[in-house]
Amino acid sequence: MPTANRAAGRFSYEGLDRIIHEKARLSVLTSLAAHPKGLPFPDLKRLCGLTDGNLSRHLSVLSEADFVSLEKGVYRNRPQTICCLTSGGRERFLGYLTVLEQVVRDAARAAERASDPARTNGLGSVTKPA
Amino acid sequence: MPTANRAAGRFSYEGLDRIIHEKARLSVLTSLAAHPKGLPFPDLKRLCGLTDGNLSRHLSVLSEADFVSLEKGVYRNRPQTICCLTSGGRERFLGYLTVLEQVVRDAARAAERASDPARTNGLGSVTKPA
Repeated sequence: MPTANRAAGRFSYEGLDRIIHEKARLSVLTSLAAHPKGLPFPDLKRLCGLTDGNLSRHLSVLSEADFVSLEKGVYRNRPQTICCLTSGGRERFLGYLTVLEQVVRDAARAAERASDPARTNGLGSVTKPA
Repeated sequence: MPTANRAAGRFSYEGLDRIIHEKARLSVLTSLAAHPKGLPFPDLKRLCGLTDGNLSRHLSVLSEADFVSLEKGVYRNRPQTICCLTSGGRERFLGYLTVLEQVVRDAARAAERASDPARTNGLGSVTKPA
C-alpha cells in the first residue's frame, strides 16, 4: 500500500463543510447549481422531495450562511419566492465537490482493492482470537 | 434543459443513508473500505483525524447498525481493538457510493451549465423586483 494512504488525517475530509454536507441541503444546492437563474420555491420543493416546512428550515440555514438568496418575484403571474445560489455559495459548493470527488475516488479504489484478495493492507501481523 | 432534470424528486438522493453520510462516519467507512483486513483503533483514529471519544461514539453507531465489527486482537504485541467493515456494511457502502457518484455528476454538469451564459434554465418568465 502506498505510504500516502497511511498518513495522519488521510481520510479526514476536512473540506466536507457540514452546512453543505447535510443530505437535504446537498439536494437544495445541487438543484440550484443546476438552475443558475434560480428556482421558485414550489419547483425547488418538488425537485428535492421536501415538505414546505423542511425546505423553509434548510433555506434559512443556507441563507444565513450566504449560500442562497431569497427574492420575492413573480412567476406565472403569481408572487413567489425565487431561490438562487449566490456567487460565493457557488464557489464554496465547488470547493466541497472537489473533496466529495476525492471521497468517491478513495472509495472506488478501496472497493477495487477489496475485490483483489491477493493484495494485503499491511496488517499481516494482526492476530485475531479464534 | 432535459425534462428528466425537472422530474419530482430528481435531486432528492434518497439513497444517501444518513448513517453513512455523516462526515466522521464517512471517513471511518472509507478508511475501513481501503483496509479490507481491518485497522487497529489507533490507526483508524489517526487516519480519520478523530479523538478517542469521537471515534468510539461513531464506531458504536456503526457497530449497532452492523456496518462494522469490533474484535479484540493483538497488534505489535499489544491487545487492541481491530475494526473491520462487515460484508453487509461493504455492500451498503457501495450502494451509497453509487448515489454519491450521481451527486458529483449532477453537480459537475450543473457547474458546466452555469459557466455557459448562453444556456437558459427555462425560467425566462421570472420577474424579479428592481
